[in-house]
Amino acid sequence: MGKKNVLVGQSGGPTAVINASLSGVIREGLAKSSHIGTVYGMVHGVEGFLEGWYLDLGKELSLEDLERLRVTPAAYLGSCRYKLPEDLSSQVYPLLFAKLQELNIGYFLYIGGNDSMDTVSKLSRYGAQRGSDICFVGIPKTIDNDLILTDHTPGFGSAAKYVASTVREIVLDSSVYRQKSVTIIELMGRHTGWLTAASVLARKEKQDNPALIYLPERAFSLEQFAQDVEKELERRRCVVVCVSEGIADSEGTFLCEYGDQKLASCLGRGLAASDSSNTKQAALDNFGHKMLTGCGKVLERFVRERFGVKVRSVEMNVSQRCSGMLASMTDIEEAEKAGQAGVSFALEEKTGIMVSFVRRENTEMYDLDFEAVDVNQVCNQEKTVPLSWIEENGNDIKEDYMDYVLPLIQGGVVLPMKDGVPDYLYRKVKFFD
Amino acid sequence: MGKKNVLVGQSGGPTAVINASLSGVIREGLAKSSHIGTVYGMVHGVEGFLEGWYLDLGKELSLEDLERLRVTPAAYLGSCRYKLPEDLSSQVYPLLFAKLQELNIGYFLYIGGNDSMDTVSKLSRYGAQRGSDICFVGIPKTIDNDLILTDHTPGFGSAAKYVASTVREIVLDSSVYRQKSVTIIELMGRHTGWLTAASVLARKEKQDNPALIYLPERAFSLEQFAQDVEKELERRRCVVVCVSEGIADSEGTFLCEYGDQKLASCLGRGLAASDSSNTKQAALDNFGHKMLTGCGKVLERFVRERFGVKVRSVEMNVSQRCSGMLASMTDIEEAEKAGQAGVSFALEEKTGIMVSFVRRENTEMYDLDFEAVDVNQVCNQEKTVPLSWIEENGNDIKEDYMDYVLPLIQGGVVLPMKDGVPDYLYRKVKFFD
Repeated sequence: MGKKNVLVGQSGGPTAVINASLSGVIREGLAKSSHIGTVYGMVHGVEGFLEGWYLDLGKELSLEDLERLRVTPAAYLGSCRYKLPEDLSSQVYPLLFAKLQELNIGYFLYIGGNDSMDTVSKLSRYGAQRGSDICFVGIPKTIDNDLILTDHTPGFGSAAKYVASTVREIVLDSSVYRQKSVTIIELMGRHTGWLTAASVLARKEKQDNPALIYLPERAFSLEQFAQDVEKELERRRCVVVCVSEGIADSEGTFLCEYGDQKLASCLGRGLAASDSSNTKQAALDNFGHKMLTGCGKVLERFVRERFGVKVRSVEMNVSQRCSGMLASMTDIEEAEKAGQAGVSFALEEKTGIMVSFVRRENTEMYDLDFEAVDVNQVCNQEKTVPLSWIEENGNDIKEDYMDYVLPLIQGGVVLPMKDGVPDYLYRKVKFFD
Repeated sequence: MGKKNVLVGQSGGPTAVINASLSGVIREGLAKSSHIGTVYGMVHGVEGFLEGWYLDLGKELSLEDLERLRVTPAAYLGSCRYKLPEDLSSQVYPLLFAKLQELNIGYFLYIGGNDSMDTVSKLSRYGAQRGSDICFVGIPKTIDNDLILTDHTPGFGSAAKYVASTVREIVLDSSVYRQKSVTIIELMGRHTGWLTAASVLARKEKQDNPALIYLPERAFSLEQFAQDVEKELERRRCVVVCVSEGIADSEGTFLCEYGDQKLASCLGRGLAASDSSNTKQAALDNFGHKMLTGCGKVLERFVRERFGVKVRSVEMNVSQRCSGMLASMTDIEEAEKAGQAGVSFALEEKTGIMVSFVRRENTEMYDLDFEAVDVNQVCNQEKTVPLSWIEENGNDIKEDYMDYVLPLIQGGVVLPMKDGVPDYLYRKVKFFD
């Protein structure tokens, strides 16, 4: 068998380290020149590849470029949110495989989250059906840390470091005045609270802010929240609360969907300038997902009406996932190794697998092994924060979580700077615009 | 005349470098031990000092503490938004001076913005009336950069560096998908656009995003905005727009106060799920200032209704002013020197002055002189971005601004880290809670 080529793509939301994984794939691919011809990159994932958008990354990127790629956030190749048809007899599959054949692809690597693992699963199953020898390998990526069968996911450590550090700064900021105040910080996390839980690391001492932390793993009760805030306002001047965007009540209604009538009924009285809505349907994004931002504003309004204190809500927004400046070096290194491991597994002719992180037990130092797990078991599953890591009353995080997350946020990055701002690597070739 | 003591306070909103100025005052005060006894710090500014809250900073802080203080954001001593009475015959003044006498204060230094310079002005005028020999000196501070008679203000450079770098990351983040999209970034700036203008530095090349930048210095027209966005959507896939929170139309109505009827009339048709408001009065904060956040959400809604493209708004929020991790080393050093210069001016028996930054002309390298200017001329004035630095159509920033701001954002900071997060200096003594 002659040399085959690698095809690598990025899919799903950006992270600080998805390009480090890409860098790992490229380096390892080019290093294995006895088995691998070159490394092609799909532009905008499978969706763009189907339109003929790809690059020869071996030609495209110099060694200096690869160094900068490693620390550049967001997705260098461009991303997509394309779902392959469930029906493997769809015409998309032979079309895609014809294109793979054209480029003499032997190894298909896809860096992404849940939906991207679904793509790897489908392609490997279709490949098996037609007796293809292409190896399909998934490389995990998500700030949400919600993939199963892996200790954690690349991207999470950097996001957690960003959240912990930034919440600490907001705590400092929020406490400069002597007035009593409540600050509500809304963090990313639709169904899982892994990232919001990292706000616990903002505390230097146990009694420090954030005083209250709520995750989607437990049903949120506005009444319980009011009691929690009241108690905190009695013992401290400034109360900082961290919440996941996806918190929902016991009936499954997202807090960001609470309308004025619902708030009024929780308050036991009308609101100033209220509308008549009980709940508001959250708007849908272009992929049909509910946009769940806004619970911070709902809670801000509730606290203002209920307690009459100074209150502010902060939606931490996209910097959580795309801040390269505060990336964790541990995360960058692991992401890159995940990319390298993906190529190694493919060369061992493993297919239909995802690179998994296994934390070594019984060692003094934190260290990882990289293993291959069945991608079919991973996709469309969701790993939540264990309930035993959340305080019983649902408003704080336990020590177990801290032991888990601390190694992942260690080490900082020194970025190439130009004119006082980070000199990230931009893709030269644009395929449209 | 025996040794006198220094009293220093912080006032107004937090910045990344207000503690660097404090560090400068303390170092210079303690260094001049032949003339100065010790350096006291007011806790929560004049307001807290009137209640008897102060610290002996010479005893409180070790040399190692001072190093950490220098890079810790927000206000170590606590801040206030206290305005002294206009009427100099108010009982507050003799009360305050009695307290100054008690501590044998010879030099009163106040680090703050506009309102704080007003405090320095009033105290120096009252002091002159009663023949006091206490020197009152203001040290400028504000991310808004809106003080007159100084080239720029400490705090602005770090905020500008944060904005430039973070907008660059959001631009990367916003462009990972192939779908057309508009991203609106709302930046701080109620009346002046100094900080929003720094988003121009996010571009690597002239044609890069952010494509459109709007400052409060020019009247904002929703119709013109629609035309600008339309034009940009024709030539690029992803359009990033930066706006100051305080943009207002030609009638002086803030965009954040635009209600659904107003939006509908600009669209020439009704909105989905609209209310009947023409304008909404912005809520007031606890100091009676209008809370001007929200224009990003208004523009997001407008763009969604008008163009039907994917749109997101990002309110950059308090991290602009309190991110120590992305502080500019130039800014930190200048802030510290401003503190030192304040002590020097006070020892020269200058009073009723503010430390001013004067940029040296006709030199190759950027460099500053520190001068004393009449604080009475500074307070209650506002410096806006020169209209000649803004493009005629009001949607972009000219080269002159870049020449002005670039030196201020140079150099990064290495923070003391512990457990993966910045190990900032916290005040040990709490006066209440």
